[in-house]
Amino acid sequence: MSHNSFGHLFRVTTWGESHGPAIGCVVDGCPPRLPLTEADIQPFLDRRRPGQSRFVTQRQEPDQVRILSGTFEGMTTGTPIALHIENTDQRSRDYGEIKDRFRPGHADLTYELKYGIRDYRGGGRSSARETAMRVAAGAVARKVLGAGVTLRGALVQLGADRVDRAAWDWAEVERNEFFCPDPAAAARWEERLLAARKSGSSLGAVIEVVAEGVPPGLGAPIYGKLDAELAAALMSINAVKGVEIGEGFAAASLSGEENADEMRMGPQGEVRFGSNHAGGILGGISTGQPIVARFAVKPTSSILTPRAAVDRFGQEVEVQTKGRHDPCVGIRAVPVGEAMLALVLADHLLRHRAQNPDAPDRARLPRN
Amino acid sequence: MSHNSFGHLFRVTTWGESHGPAIGCVVDGCPPRLPLTEADIQPFLDRRRPGQSRFVTQRQEPDQVRILSGTFEGMTTGTPIALHIENTDQRSRDYGEIKDRFRPGHADLTYELKYGIRDYRGGGRSSARETAMRVAAGAVARKVLGAGVTLRGALVQLGADRVDRAAWDWAEVERNEFFCPDPAAAARWEERLLAARKSGSSLGAVIEVVAEGVPPGLGAPIYGKLDAELAAALMSINAVKGVEIGEGFAAASLSGEENADEMRMGPQGEVRFGSNHAGGILGGISTGQPIVARFAVKPTSSILTPRAAVDRFGQEVEVQTKGRHDPCVGIRAVPVGEAMLALVLADHLLRHRAQNPDAPDRARLPRN
Amino acid sequence: MSHNSFGHLFRVTTWGESHGPAIGCVVDGCPPRLPLTEADIQPFLDRRRPGQSRFVTQRQEPDQVRILSGTFEGMTTGTPIALHIENTDQRSRDYGEIKDRFRPGHADLTYELKYGIRDYRGGGRSSARETAMRVAAGAVARKVLGAGVTLRGALVQLGADRVDRAAWDWAEVERNEFFCPDPAAAARWEERLLAARKSGSSLGAVIEVVAEGVPPGLGAPIYGKLDAELAAALMSINAVKGVEIGEGFAAASLSGEENADEMRMGPQGEVRFGSNHAGGILGGISTGQPIVARFAVKPTSSILTPRAAVDRFGQEVEVQTKGRHDPCVGIRAVPVGEAMLALVLADHLLRHRAQNPDAPDRARLPRN
Amino acid sequence: MSHNSFGHLFRVTTWGESHGPAIGCVVDGCPPRLPLTEADIQPFLDRRRPGQSRFVTQRQEPDQVRILSGTFEGMTTGTPIALHIENTDQRSRDYGEIKDRFRPGHADLTYELKYGIRDYRGGGRSSARETAMRVAAGAVARKVLGAGVTLRGALVQLGADRVDRAAWDWAEVERNEFFCPDPAAAARWEERLLAARKSGSSLGAVIEVVAEGVPPGLGAPIYGKLDAELAAALMSINAVKGVEIGEGFAAASLSGEENADEMRMGPQGEVRFGSNHAGGILGGISTGQPIVARFAVKPTSSILTPRAAVDRFGQEVEVQTKGRHDPCVGIRAVPVGEAMLALVLADHLLRHRAQNPDAPDRARLPRN
Repeated sequence: MSHNSFGHLFRVTTWGESHGPAIGCVVDGCPPRLPLTEADIQPFLDRRRPGQSRFVTQRQEPDQVRILSGTFEGMTTGTPIALHIENTDQRSRDYGEIKDRFRPGHADLTYELKYGIRDYRGGGRSSARETAMRVAAGAVARKVLGAGVTLRGALVQLGADRVDRAAWDWAEVERNEFFCPDPAAAARWEERLLAARKSGSSLGAVIEVVAEGVPPGLGAPIYGKLDAELAAALMSINAVKGVEIGEGFAAASLSGEENADEMRMGPQGEVRFGSNHAGGILGGISTGQPIVARFAVKPTSSILTPRAAVDRFGQEVEVQTKGRHDPCVGIRAVPVGEAMLALVLADHLLRHRAQNPDAPDRARLPRN
Repeated sequence: MSHNSFGHLFRVTTWGESHGPAIGCVVDGCPPRLPLTEADIQPFLDRRRPGQSRFVTQRQEPDQVRILSGTFEGMTTGTPIALHIENTDQRSRDYGEIKDRFRPGHADLTYELKYGIRDYRGGGRSSARETAMRVAAGAVARKVLGAGVTLRGALVQLGADRVDRAAWDWAEVERNEFFCPDPAAAARWEERLLAARKSGSSLGAVIEVVAEGVPPGLGAPIYGKLDAELAAALMSINAVKGVEIGEGFAAASLSGEENADEMRMGPQGEVRFGSNHAGGILGGISTGQPIVARFAVKPTSSILTPRAAVDRFGQEVEVQTKGRHDPCVGIRAVPVGEAMLALVLADHLLRHRAQNPDAPDRARLPRN
Repeated sequence: MSHNSFGHLFRVTTWGESHGPAIGCVVDGCPPRLPLTEADIQPFLDRRRPGQSRFVTQRQEPDQVRILSGTFEGMTTGTPIALHIENTDQRSRDYGEIKDRFRPGHADLTYELKYGIRDYRGGGRSSARETAMRVAAGAVARKVLGAGVTLRGALVQLGADRVDRAAWDWAEVERNEFFCPDPAAAARWEERLLAARKSGSSLGAVIEVVAEGVPPGLGAPIYGKLDAELAAALMSINAVKGVEIGEGFAAASLSGEENADEMRMGPQGEVRFGSNHAGGILGGISTGQPIVARFAVKPTSSILTPRAAVDRFGQEVEVQTKGRHDPCVGIRAVPVGEAMLALVLADHLLRHRAQNPDAPDRARLPRN
Repeated sequence: MSHNSFGHLFRVTTWGESHGPAIGCVVDGCPPRLPLTEADIQPFLDRRRPGQSRFVTQRQEPDQVRILSGTFEGMTTGTPIALHIENTDQRSRDYGEIKDRFRPGHADLTYELKYGIRDYRGGGRSSARETAMRVAAGAVARKVLGAGVTLRGALVQLGADRVDRAAWDWAEVERNEFFCPDPAAAARWEERLLAARKSGSSLGAVIEVVAEGVPPGLGAPIYGKLDAELAAALMSINAVKGVEIGEGFAAASLSGEENADEMRMGPQGEVRFGSNHAGGILGGISTGQPIVARFAVKPTSSILTPRAAVDRFGQEVEVQTKGRHDPCVGIRAVPVGEAMLALVLADHLLRHRAQNPDAPDRARLPRN
């Protein structure tokens, strides 16, 4: 029930505040004898790191990860893996503005009401900085899943502007500053985001994450459903307000005939589907098709435009966020979403084989 | 990590198959000395029960709940509450059609791949019948929350047809067969659903659930966020493909200024919000505003139109569902969604007061 | 964190009071396709059942178990298994004596202080009757462990009188009313126990449980140690006051040389140990040697001799237990201890193979 | 189910190996606004630290703890508290002796069989060094319990030599190198231990831990019993082979009359007990009397006398431990046992008030 842990067998516990000396996590339950060094984790952190483009916060930190335990001679040992990142950019600044004020859309007020105390510097525990450890842990989860599973994410909507799915190119995702799979959309978004920043405003976004090569059978009835835990995982990311699997909310507008994923047999005794409205999950259990999920990120709450707010003493004030901030936090949420997907799948892979060690790793029929 | 349990302190474990002798659940961790008899639970079950209207499955069962433990002289004792419903309508029928076939959109295939065995009668464990126990447990959760918390749900979209929010009337919800808050929409839906049934098709839906009077402070960073666990709770309901909180996916299209819920002070030192885009949750913690969530239910997979499928032996077949079925399973999901909301809130209420026994029960400022 | 659940992957939740309509449990996480019918469970319940001998309580109940879910055509399906026993001997009686009084050594007082309410009839939830469900669940756990694992228990001490270990004969355990492996001790105990009953007194006992054929590798550092969870499992049985593994408390009096279990290689590349002071567990992980545990049961608290006590109103009273009671509850604890051992091992078997699917099932060297 | 986490609401996760760069833990679920700085934790670590006396290992490390998160301006914030200790004494040495050999009584063999890999340096994860983090976390738990709860421990038996309980003096515990409450025993033990060390042998021990001022009501039926979780907590300490509560194994030899803790009313409406055979726990729930537990520690496995063993390649070898080692690891187990008691109680305090916020904090009758 730990508030800051995630997963059941492959389990991650994160700690740390934005402006404390460090942030970190403990990855417990990892299988032994997986090759793992900092070099396996760092690229994912670099990908999430602020300060890379004009469109994410200007905080400059190397986010250099260290493995403090759980590996020996470059291999996991089965004991807990502690990951550690120093906070190097805790620049001395004046927090007078937010020390006693509750910014709209932030956790300031709720932390105050719940705990009666909060580390206001940089948002403390509620800072998006915590997601760095999700990304680090996700890199370990990818090792558990193995090379057969491909995990990718992309920004599919910025503000109200969606990508053209017909133009989808995964290679494009790595070529622009938005993780955008559609070059035309990327070009439009650049203008859009510069305008938002200039005006002190911010934009929301929708991210899609996809896992290919996932074996069937992951997930479990009734409260251990793969989609249920994936929903929690994605909704737990800062600023996320919606999650959908496969067709998602659009499924409500389809007829039963349209929504049915018809099945045929493939040449090697495998089930093939004519479509993937289900997003790779039926009855809470993976089918072997790609797992597809999307989540919506609200526009950054830190904006230059003044908003009505209150302070700790019950006084009415105006709040205006100065200084560095992302005009769209959704961009950085792409690697975070991928990491959460990896964590959920790694955990379910272990849970599945605990109960069903002889289950097939492809949707092969007949089973025996 | 139990697959069939939900919650951490207020914890529900359900069991049972559609065509076994009974279904049931165990509610553990309930506070003592709450008045509780079958009469507190039965009305919620009656509300969910199939066979009430022309638009839900014709299965006729009284769904009579019995309390087998955990109460004494009409009061909870703090020990586990076992709830039990006999399955009385396990009509003898021919399952030849589905015994070996995997119906599109059903859990047939995934159970087979995962477990290598399944109780195919009525869908077995994956039957919507399991949700009766959620509703029963939810009735107990309401007792924990107390009379100060109001929990309600409504169908806000049937197929692609949405209610008019300007016409919203909670009283209307109890007056039609759709839990629809807009009488004009209810009238349209009646026609729409009759047409779908006649043509052997089915429709999806979107449900909204709202909790008013929830104290601030429920939820916790980072993986125990109230919205994250609510997302899992709602996504775990059969046929749900999407979940959103407050503004949800629409938040992606708002600017930061539009999305900000501005704050002012109320006459009794309480924070008042000018809007509720956040759906009552900031940083994973309740603000004291109404908790608002929506979830999308896909169209019923059981349809008369034949669909391509495969069987257990790897043969390609056609599947067509005969017999009773709901043309829209989303209707019955309304009381289920309310119950899941109640379960999440009751669990978090207990977790919150364990850590923060002196937290205020309203968003009062200054706190001390 | 459920108070009434045990285990992590193979998980049991029990419910029910002594004088309610029924008791039951839910066994979740059981692997599929294990043959299981009531006939696999009933013999273990019969073995634990009161009313079999002169030395256990005269309560006469068939304790007939029913499987209500989780199996199909005589096989487990991987979904939760609900087990159910009707309470048939809730004889109407006068509870005036204990309704308001707190019997020394019973949970009467602590339930009252904790919950402010209690079902006093027959001890309610704290009745030893709950252990019937442990035994039932243990029978399922034995199926998970398979025929290669032998689980047995014996009474090794009654009052201060211990068995002669040189005379140990497992076959003897089934031949007397005490689960005693030493016929001479059994003869002495008969007299001893008749005398205790005649005088309205009671006796304590020590039980030893042994599991042979357990694969190495079960358990995990640091808080998932096999011996730590076994200690909790045995200590959770009513009236247990001490638990030890292998040499146990006697290890404190040995020198390091005496306590060392020396190792040699067996003919098939297996490690052989010259002794088993460790009780089959090193560093919290099974070695492949027999797992050996013992637990001490206090003398039955219900005695005829009057004892000073208090009542619910703060009045000083005398309490004397009339009616049926076991002069030694330790006897019936033998099958319960075996069941708890089975539950711990089954859970750890699943946990182990989740993380280490390629670990050897015997202590074979070199490993690869 | 995390292998390296302990507790449910007040939850500790430890990580680190003996010869890695650091060890640490995360304390999650701590209530906010408790004063906490390193100065509150360090004294407990100093008390456990090796190198203080002639009788514990000569490893010289300051064990300087740092708080990396979860506090702000000297107060807990309710977010996870990360504690961190650098390993400064990882002296470069030749591990050729133990690299491939399995020392009797150590976890070498079982880690190898389970994981197929192990960090052999200083015992890796199975090193007693891990217990430093338990002690650190225990210091935080003491803050949760508050000044009203007194937690103390003492060595009550060294080898076969027990203290004289009539001579018990808590003040004496801090005056000798053995945490011994009986000065005469301390004098005998000094000789005994010097002799054991000189001969390259080792001794076992029994430790008693006592908590006074614990409110009634902590614990819960059936698997969340206070004594069951305390048994797991103590058994999880390295080298522990037995645990007992109150009268413990000796209870087996008492009659029901002797074992009954009779009750009378105290002057302020509180229950007073004539004795404490129960060790402060009835039915798994605290009575308000002192909680008393004992645990047995086996003699140190690392001894100079050569013992028969095997190596990783299946060869028979002799093992002899050279270099620094404690002749009795039981001594250092005293502060560790106290810490585990503190952790169990803090967790149960939170769990209790979650369910029973209005329960009395003393054994007061009548309750209302």
